[in-house]
Amino acid sequence: MKICLIGAGRIGAVHAIAIASDENANLHSVVDFHQESAEKLANKYNAITLSMDEAFENNEIDAFIIASSTSTHADLIEKCAKVGKPVFCEKPIDLSLDRALSCAKAVEESGIVCMLGFNRRFDPHMASLKSQVDANAIGSVQSLVITSHDPEPPSMEYIAGSGGLFLDMMIHDFDMACWILDDSPSSIYVAANAVNDAIAGQGDVDTASVIMNMKKGAIVTIMNGRQASFGYDQRVEAFGETGMLQVKNALEDNVVLSNSSGIRQAKNQHFFLERYGKAFHNELVHFMDSFQSGVQPSVNISDGVLALKIAEAAKESLLSGNSINL
Amino acid sequence: MKICLIGAGRIGAVHAIAIASDENANLHSVVDFHQESAEKLANKYNAITLSMDEAFENNEIDAFIIASSTSTHADLIEKCAKVGKPVFCEKPIDLSLDRALSCAKAVEESGIVCMLGFNRRFDPHMASLKSQVDANAIGSVQSLVITSHDPEPPSMEYIAGSGGLFLDMMIHDFDMACWILDDSPSSIYVAANAVNDAIAGQGDVDTASVIMNMKKGAIVTIMNGRQASFGYDQRVEAFGETGMLQVKNALEDNVVLSNSSGIRQAKNQHFFLERYGKAFHNELVHFMDSFQSGVQPSVNISDGVLALKIAEAAKESLLSGNSINL
Amino acid sequence: MKICLIGAGRIGAVHAIAIASDENANLHSVVDFHQESAEKLANKYNAITLSMDEAFENNEIDAFIIASSTSTHADLIEKCAKVGKPVFCEKPIDLSLDRALSCAKAVEESGIVCMLGFNRRFDPHMASLKSQVDANAIGSVQSLVITSHDPEPPSMEYIAGSGGLFLDMMIHDFDMACWILDDSPSSIYVAANAVNDAIAGQGDVDTASVIMNMKKGAIVTIMNGRQASFGYDQRVEAFGETGMLQVKNALEDNVVLSNSSGIRQAKNQHFFLERYGKAFHNELVHFMDSFQSGVQPSVNISDGVLALKIAEAAKESLLSGNSINL
Amino acid sequence: MKICLIGAGRIGAVHAIAIASDENANLHSVVDFHQESAEKLANKYNAITLSMDEAFENNEIDAFIIASSTSTHADLIEKCAKVGKPVFCEKPIDLSLDRALSCAKAVEESGIVCMLGFNRRFDPHMASLKSQVDANAIGSVQSLVITSHDPEPPSMEYIAGSGGLFLDMMIHDFDMACWILDDSPSSIYVAANAVNDAIAGQGDVDTASVIMNMKKGAIVTIMNGRQASFGYDQRVEAFGETGMLQVKNALEDNVVLSNSSGIRQAKNQHFFLERYGKAFHNELVHFMDSFQSGVQPSVNISDGVLALKIAEAAKESLLSGNSINL
Repeated sequence: MKICLIGAGRIGAVHAIAIASDENANLHSVVDFHQESAEKLANKYNAITLSMDEAFENNEIDAFIIASSTSTHADLIEKCAKVGKPVFCEKPIDLSLDRALSCAKAVEESGIVCMLGFNRRFDPHMASLKSQVDANAIGSVQSLVITSHDPEPPSMEYIAGSGGLFLDMMIHDFDMACWILDDSPSSIYVAANAVNDAIAGQGDVDTASVIMNMKKGAIVTIMNGRQASFGYDQRVEAFGETGMLQVKNALEDNVVLSNSSGIRQAKNQHFFLERYGKAFHNELVHFMDSFQSGVQPSVNISDGVLALKIAEAAKESLLSGNSINL
Repeated sequence: MKICLIGAGRIGAVHAIAIASDENANLHSVVDFHQESAEKLANKYNAITLSMDEAFENNEIDAFIIASSTSTHADLIEKCAKVGKPVFCEKPIDLSLDRALSCAKAVEESGIVCMLGFNRRFDPHMASLKSQVDANAIGSVQSLVITSHDPEPPSMEYIAGSGGLFLDMMIHDFDMACWILDDSPSSIYVAANAVNDAIAGQGDVDTASVIMNMKKGAIVTIMNGRQASFGYDQRVEAFGETGMLQVKNALEDNVVLSNSSGIRQAKNQHFFLERYGKAFHNELVHFMDSFQSGVQPSVNISDGVLALKIAEAAKESLLSGNSINL
Repeated sequence: MKICLIGAGRIGAVHAIAIASDENANLHSVVDFHQESAEKLANKYNAITLSMDEAFENNEIDAFIIASSTSTHADLIEKCAKVGKPVFCEKPIDLSLDRALSCAKAVEESGIVCMLGFNRRFDPHMASLKSQVDANAIGSVQSLVITSHDPEPPSMEYIAGSGGLFLDMMIHDFDMACWILDDSPSSIYVAANAVNDAIAGQGDVDTASVIMNMKKGAIVTIMNGRQASFGYDQRVEAFGETGMLQVKNALEDNVVLSNSSGIRQAKNQHFFLERYGKAFHNELVHFMDSFQSGVQPSVNISDGVLALKIAEAAKESLLSGNSINL
Repeated sequence: MKICLIGAGRIGAVHAIAIASDENANLHSVVDFHQESAEKLANKYNAITLSMDEAFENNEIDAFIIASSTSTHADLIEKCAKVGKPVFCEKPIDLSLDRALSCAKAVEESGIVCMLGFNRRFDPHMASLKSQVDANAIGSVQSLVITSHDPEPPSMEYIAGSGGLFLDMMIHDFDMACWILDDSPSSIYVAANAVNDAIAGQGDVDTASVIMNMKKGAIVTIMNGRQASFGYDQRVEAFGETGMLQVKNALEDNVVLSNSSGIRQAKNQHFFLERYGKAFHNELVHFMDSFQSGVQPSVNISDGVLALKIAEAAKESLLSGNSINL
């Protein structure tokens, strides 16, 4: 399967590695407005570089992976819809819910496979929790708690174009909650601060706690933060009628030092490249399975739209100080 | 120091053990409307039984411990204030905030030592977390998460007289949050359900998630539940600018079984008698230190009033579905 | 049940606390050549002091607890045998195997209850492992590994009278191995060093690894050391055909600090008073049950003799550098 | 760097993956007497197949990796020495110590880079322990304990050609001990059984505990077993004057299930392919660094000879029941 990768930045490189380590996938071509980046990545895997127009006219390409900046996502997805080719796109679809909705409409009308990059669903740990929940290991879930702290804030440039904490970071957790519970929220309440002055200066927040009442009755609590001294903090806790399932953090190594100061383990794995390395590979495998079999992927554009709707409501709650109904 | 214990029930027996195992404390007498219970407990420790009136007229008694039902707390505290003797009283002061306020006024005017039974402050694990927070081990706290699940619901009779989840159970967590952060909330938002039909039938809830914005800026998240198959679940997590402190659960034992089903540790200690055994002893020591030295205890009637105010606001939030300002 | 305590030192005080916290036991009297120590301990519990002769003539005393120095154990046990009263004696019976054997003979002829203070058998964690082994949780045990490190070396005065590492410290582990496996060794091999120069100067060792072939086929490995910076290290690992059971260390508290240096738990509980506090209580309860019911205790003088025999063989192996048959 | 892989079996495939995922390595050719296996593996990576003779005459090949059966190792290493090309060979060099010594002599005379496949040295967890030991994190090491249990016994065919437990399995631990401590043993004592009847039938053992006195004074204890129901058990514990370092097991996932049966984590990662996946990659990187820079690798043929000598002494100890001096 010949894949064209659009976007040769950090996340593009991650997808390139996933393609290279998969038996059935082949990196056909790389597209990036910054030609030097495109060439560097393409050379490493004996792929070619193409302009955007060339890519969508190329008959050899079986599928597209979009890893370019957020503002280009909706347009590129629609181009894939137009040429009728499967597309995997990083989240979010767009910072505007309206634009995402029109894009989703185009996808639906075309009938193409369109998978969204909610990578955590493909993390082996998260997937194991989900499958155990589905297998009724803890009965019906009454409370779901998701904790997510990045190790350090992104650049202010990144923050400026990110759409803010809810659209950029917590959107993963909104999707996780809906996925794990097979449900969607009826209301959301947000409490949030900016402890980092630069982030405050951008009108964004970096520390937030959120409660969602889900339609089927469960209560979801999400905690997010942009800076954790001990590494990437990615935990999930599902509390059900007969037990509790938790995903614990992954540590840098399994070495323990005991001395007069106490008993010390390593920090958490630093960030998403380490923590979700396998997830990036697994989501590629799922994408390829999906368009090879013609079955829609387990996470598609409607999931992206739902997560955006929740993120919009979260922003509204923060502004109003009140609970928002969805 | 001769102590009179009012209330010979389950929690009274716990206090009797704490008194017996302390070098300086002596169980002088036991008071209970149910004379047989009073006698049984008194005999075990070579103490006498007294009627309520006799107790407050007895000159030998140095201090009172009130472990009778909640509805008697405020009256008994006021009697101690009247005779000018130190009193330790189980929480809450009263189910009515107004009654608690008038009681607090009487205590303040009398100048007696009046300590409230927020036992978790005296748990060695919680106390260690608090002292590390105070020693700046994690910098300023940005987020505090308290998780508390009982192993099983109390009797419906108990529920009926309990004042509901917020006054009976989460009141401990409200106090913990204010204590750990040296702060009080400016607003509170509650999401809650009754997963147990009998509890629902009483108009109470058993599963709740709460967010409080604290005045100094921290965000507090509290999760409560009345039933956990894996035992008493008592965790605290303080997330600060330079690190995170957690109190983990105490397990029944340290034995680990590894086999083809996985790696299995024991359940959590079953309930508060096991989990907070040392806390009951430590709080007695603090009470005695306090009235022997004449210094007010670290937790007094004003803490009880504050926790009640928060619990009232929590009930209001649940009814209205909105955030409530305090 | 009126108990006379012989020996008012550190371990005597531990037994006094166990007696005081037991419903059925009463500390009748304290005997110590150092009269001041005897009086101090007796006064704390409203007991009397007696001379040795008075104690063995006193008709009120139901049982004796011997917590005096090792050199007095065998004589005192024999005196109990002579007056026909139950006795609990700290390990070892004597530093000389011959003396222990003659003492054991006297005990057997008298028919008295004679319990040896192998306290670890009564530790809840060790007892849980033992009961799970007996319940076939891991099938037949193929390998048993016992790790024991003291937090710090005892005084050189103590070392001088201790009989050396094998008689003083590892004797507990010899007993544990025989108890857990219901077996005894057919051979033993020792490798040992003195890393502490003062201990080397006394002709003793402080660091040892031992392998025993047990008669029923299991292999036992024991590691001992006199100094661990991270507190009292007391672990057991039983590896069987269908799984593994481990007793993990007990920590000072359940608080975890995560920061840029890693994830830090507390040290181990410091030493035996903390780690085996419950064991001291449980062994007293078992002793009282035993002499009240007339049933021999689960650990008696023959266990003490067996452990001594193994310790003697260990010393022989160290000297010869070879495996010793038992 | 063009690499020729000799041996297209299970371990050969692992090396092929390591080569494929490395930027600088290229799988040039595959050699296997079983031509079909060679072709299958070669095709997957666009490599060619060669006969043994062709391989050693081929000028394009920069280095050899030997992953064929043990009996071919020494001959193939010597062929590499003859053609003066770098070689990485799986352990052991040979089942005969004499043959290994003559092979080592040929390597030394040729001056080629010859690296032995003691993969555990390249495991990130083991390497972290080693580097912390070297950085004096625990002072001088007094005791080293290595525990290694395979999840299940190999086929009896494998056992027959393996050289037995000490040459096949514990040889890794002998190398680890010498590596971590920068030392070699002065004596070794072995206790061992065959709990598996088929293995006993082959005259081999499957359960062993070993003590080695190291020349610089440390005591090494090794426990090995061929079957662990809970997965691959790979632990190391270094106990030093100021602390203890442990490598804990790697689990299948980070999910924890708490319910009325206790608190359950996943089993250990199943076997060496999972547990040492990164080690296989890291050792390849080290091999390539080594022959590119011309510096001898950190683990070379003399380490293989030393481990063989220890394994021979272990077999002798088992036969004699005594400690063997080295």
